[in-house]
Amino acid sequence: MSTYRIASIPGDGIGVDVTAEARQVLDRAGEVHGFRLEWTVFDWSCERYTKTGRMMPEDGIDQLRPFDGILLGAVGFPGVPDHVSLWGLLIPIRRAFAQYVNLRPVRLLPGTTSVLAGREADELEMVIVRENTEGEYSQIGGRHNPGQPGEFVVQESIFTRVGVERIIRFAFELARTRSGRVCSATKSNGIIHTMPFWDEVFAEVAAEYPDVHSEQTHIDALAARMVQHPDRLDVVVGSNLFGDILSDLAAAVTGGLGMAPSGNVNPPGEYPSMFEAVHGSAPDIAGQGIANPVAQILAGAMMLEHLGEKTAAAAVHRAVEEVLAAGEVATPDLGGKSTTTELGAAITAAL
Amino acid sequence: MSTYRIASIPGDGIGVDVTAEARQVLDRAGEVHGFRLEWTVFDWSCERYTKTGRMMPEDGIDQLRPFDGILLGAVGFPGVPDHVSLWGLLIPIRRAFAQYVNLRPVRLLPGTTSVLAGREADELEMVIVRENTEGEYSQIGGRHNPGQPGEFVVQESIFTRVGVERIIRFAFELARTRSGRVCSATKSNGIIHTMPFWDEVFAEVAAEYPDVHSEQTHIDALAARMVQHPDRLDVVVGSNLFGDILSDLAAAVTGGLGMAPSGNVNPPGEYPSMFEAVHGSAPDIAGQGIANPVAQILAGAMMLEHLGEKTAAAAVHRAVEEVLAAGEVATPDLGGKSTTTELGAAITAAL
Ligand SMILES: CC(C)[C@H](C(=O)O)[C@@H](O)C(=O)O
Ligand SMILES: CC(C)[C@H](C(=O)O)[C@@H](O)C(=O)O
Repeated sequence: MSTYRIASIPGDGIGVDVTAEARQVLDRAGEVHGFRLEWTVFDWSCERYTKTGRMMPEDGIDQLRPFDGILLGAVGFPGVPDHVSLWGLLIPIRRAFAQYVNLRPVRLLPGTTSVLAGREADELEMVIVRENTEGEYSQIGGRHNPGQPGEFVVQESIFTRVGVERIIRFAFELARTRSGRVCSATKSNGIIHTMPFWDEVFAEVAAEYPDVHSEQTHIDALAARMVQHPDRLDVVVGSNLFGDILSDLAAAVTGGLGMAPSGNVNPPGEYPSMFEAVHGSAPDIAGQGIANPVAQILAGAMMLEHLGEKTAAAAVHRAVEEVLAAGEVATPDLGGKSTTTELGAAITAAL
Repeated sequence: MSTYRIASIPGDGIGVDVTAEARQVLDRAGEVHGFRLEWTVFDWSCERYTKTGRMMPEDGIDQLRPFDGILLGAVGFPGVPDHVSLWGLLIPIRRAFAQYVNLRPVRLLPGTTSVLAGREADELEMVIVRENTEGEYSQIGGRHNPGQPGEFVVQESIFTRVGVERIIRFAFELARTRSGRVCSATKSNGIIHTMPFWDEVFAEVAAEYPDVHSEQTHIDALAARMVQHPDRLDVVVGSNLFGDILSDLAAAVTGGLGMAPSGNVNPPGEYPSMFEAVHGSAPDIAGQGIANPVAQILAGAMMLEHLGEKTAAAAVHRAVEEVLAAGEVATPDLGGKSTTTELGAAITAAL
């Protein structure tokens, strides 16, 4: 029987609630499909930061290194500035482990409704392939003459050939296993250094995949298209920032943020990959037992798939779909009255 | 009788079609409301670029300086890279004339439908206040070691205190004349130099407007919110890039890009302001006579308002609404079969 060592970092807010459910579901999947998950729980969070001044210990990255996978809840809590909580935990992990793909599949599941008029379940399905280690999220920059009239701040966006090429190539490879279509998010009309470079690399890689249909759209028009003609999109590849925006939007037009999982993936498998929901820690509803655990459970399914347990991953998906389609157990965001635990338990039972 | 000197730059593609209609409508508004528009047409465009190597003459900015207003169609055509066409015309005008506010009102008009389920006309109305002269659109940056494995490109985002403060202050002033609510688009959790600065200035300005309700939301969540709860937004203020994305999205969830006007405004009135549709030159449908002229006509109405002709501006709005509500004359994007000219003529007649 295979055993996988999994690091669980529930984090803050509803991250704690939903990770607990995901663990139950995944453990059950292991029982049914013949593998074992060996969990180690880390209390790295904003709470830890307020006590110790650090989101994670200094050797945090080293502690995570031996694991087969990481299941992250969500990070962020009022009182701790976001740029502290995220750059002290989430972002360093993404970078240290070269999790250069942020994979964000969305799909309008049976039993859920879209905010878009006239869209049926299964009609909307796409995947955002987000660059996850460079781009607009950079530490390089600073402030000139604070408090003075001439004050300004600068920040460098940084796009490397290595970084851009590998994410775009990943998107094309993925498209081959899906619809054979890739759309690249750009803004080369406004952002004249980095984005024309992105487009150039995109064109180069596209030339190697004549069997894949490729196109590019400016991020503003692409956001509009995502609500007007989302059915014409399948694999969408974007920079760190553009992928971030588009994946929230894609989640919003399918079942909502409560349904969208994501994987921070190191494709060569040299380092552990990390799986999390797209949604944040939602401090406003934390601890009330009403958070929707589906996104986190589907993130768990992505982790199983990544570990090679494809049958189990598919079974988790089916269980989620069955429970949602039946519609008897649903959290408030899905129009029901059930608790986080009740929905988690129903999915576990469906396995 | 007041006379206003207006520079018309039809530009490329459908820009040419829709500007012609807007001129007709505005001239008629002048006849009815007692003012005259004296038009000077400039052929600055991609076509001009292919012939002369320049989008506009070297002294283009100086030629525009004496005008009371500028009505721009749209710029961009296949074969001329976007960063050439836009940085050779649109963006230099925005900057040289300190048109630091890009004002983009949207509203779901009677007779049009939203892509969002269950949204009624008049239920959705908001205005995006976009910073228009700095931010992510910068000329500073470049490329290191082209073609080499270590190749990278960088681009600076630049946010000045002057620039950030004036746009945020404009948003608060505007909110006072509307709902009294401002939402700021940020991403300080990911973009850790410029965006925390933006938030800081926002908080400072907000403190001066205790009567205005202020909040800030990360751009990813805000994009999601714009499709999930657009009714909870009114004045939304964002950087050059964020405002660009959000205004296309806002247009898409209200009546579509064919309906959204915009003003590039220099609030002190030291320089001419410029009015244009949010949509682009749409080369794919150019010259077919099917482009929707409403956005451009409403941009014209914004220009009249800016010139102080408020009654005439309101009359143009009413004429547009009447024609749309009647639904007899509508371009294909509105579900009809009429031509650009027919819709323009119907609006002129309604005046
Ligand atoms: C054409 C382009 C440079 C422009 C922009 O992003 O500013 C356009 O999208 C707009 O919104 O006016
Ligand atoms: C929390 C934040 C830094 C993060 C991001 O933008 O990367 C989040 O929005 C996400 O999408 O994972």
